[in-house]
Amino acid sequence: MKIDILTLFPSMFYGVLGSSILKRAISKDHIQVNLIDIRDHSNDKHNKVDDYPYGGGAGMVMKPEPIFNVFDELNKTPGYFRDQKTIFMTPQGKKYSQKKAQELSQLDRITILCGHYEGVDERVRDNLVDEELSIGDFVLTGGELPAMVIMDSVVRLLPGVLGDEASAQADSFNDYLLEHPHYTRPAIFRGTDVPKVLLSGNHAQIDRWRKKESLKRTLTRRPDLLENVKLNDFEKKLLEELKQQDNI
Amino acid sequence: MKIDILTLFPSMFYGVLGSSILKRAISKDHIQVNLIDIRDHSNDKHNKVDDYPYGGGAGMVMKPEPIFNVFDELNKTPGYFRDQKTIFMTPQGKKYSQKKAQELSQLDRITILCGHYEGVDERVRDNLVDEELSIGDFVLTGGELPAMVIMDSVVRLLPGVLGDEASAQADSFNDYLLEHPHYTRPAIFRGTDVPKVLLSGNHAQIDRWRKKESLKRTLTRRPDLLENVKLNDFEKKLLEELKQQDNI
Repeated sequence: MKIDILTLFPSMFYGVLGSSILKRAISKDHIQVNLIDIRDHSNDKHNKVDDYPYGGGAGMVMKPEPIFNVFDELNKTPGYFRDQKTIFMTPQGKKYSQKKAQELSQLDRITILCGHYEGVDERVRDNLVDEELSIGDFVLTGGELPAMVIMDSVVRLLPGVLGDEASAQADSFNDYLLEHPHYTRPAIFRGTDVPKVLLSGNHAQIDRWRKKESLKRTLTRRPDLLENVKLNDFEKKLLEELKQQDNI
Repeated sequence: MKIDILTLFPSMFYGVLGSSILKRAISKDHIQVNLIDIRDHSNDKHNKVDDYPYGGGAGMVMKPEPIFNVFDELNKTPGYFRDQKTIFMTPQGKKYSQKKAQELSQLDRITILCGHYEGVDERVRDNLVDEELSIGDFVLTGGELPAMVIMDSVVRLLPGVLGDEASAQADSFNDYLLEHPHYTRPAIFRGTDVPKVLLSGNHAQIDRWRKKESLKRTLTRRPDLLENVKLNDFEKKLLEELKQQDNI
């Protein structure tokens, strides 16, 4: 997968691209990340990339030319197809979800445009952007962090990126139940024991405990998720047991 | 505000802390960020910070000792009060929102614990964490990016951090309406004009246009937001006009 990022702050990405999973995905050639500094594509002799908003008001607006210039260049690149997806990160966009991450992980190439300051000139959104996405109902200084969120969540779904494929499968939201609790050594730490069943070696009981904890957590914290998940008969039975208990 | 971050990947933060708003907030002493490498607090001679999950299964779990050790240290620090908030980033947490950002921006000190790998030992969550927060229904490799999201959204609300206070006020979700479109020079770009009203100099008309666009965008993209917002009579009238139009 090729990922082109248009940003005014390419250096914001260095730490994240140089650590953990994205570093590994880049070094193993699972992804190519192309950080494009919008400022380098200004026609202005002072490399001006923003200007005052028409109609007045606070903040600066990102100018259309430098961004259109980048896309003119990208469209000339061999292998850049207009049927790849250009994503603009904005709190006004469609809510990003694991389902969208899976959808994006099927593409060969994505382009992410990061807004900054007050926003970008509307003509950029009207003409260059295929999809607007939001990571949540909160205000950030720019689209850079949301772009990193998209990258991390998508790249870990690409075949071969995670060392342990099973790990991506079991995570919260892939099967739409919240994960069960995890414990590791020591078995007793500062007076608190690990649940006995986990030390039993009885895998049927361990599976049952984990599934039940997962259902319990989903039921108490995010009952909305249970509406969309397809439970098998065993899971339905566990859920009924849980609902009949008073203590949740 | 003091922000303590517990992470296995402190270098992930360098780019973001060294750019844009967080860089400025640090250099102007609005915030102090303390990056704590959990690995430095392992008692293990190999600095081991994770181990296999009890009960078997894929992935590794972050061990309790190194994290408890960090909190032992923090509690000894003069000025570290247990009534500050310790936040754990997990998709199982309460949904993060602008309201929560505002709440956190009132605190003197916050501690953010970033999970990585399969998760952290449950005893950490039970004993050390005040609040679990999620930035959305998607799976990331660790809590580092969510921690940066929290920092960025909270720090920009601190007095004096944004150059232009008005800018933070007008952003989406502070008044729970989506923002109107922005335009800047040139007035005609590649054949597309800026809406005439914005060039009119008539501020009453500009305000009306902006408010109407803001309501229109909220109505078409996020009608749920309108349920919680208190509209004044002028806004209610505009909204009625919009609802009677066929084209939205």
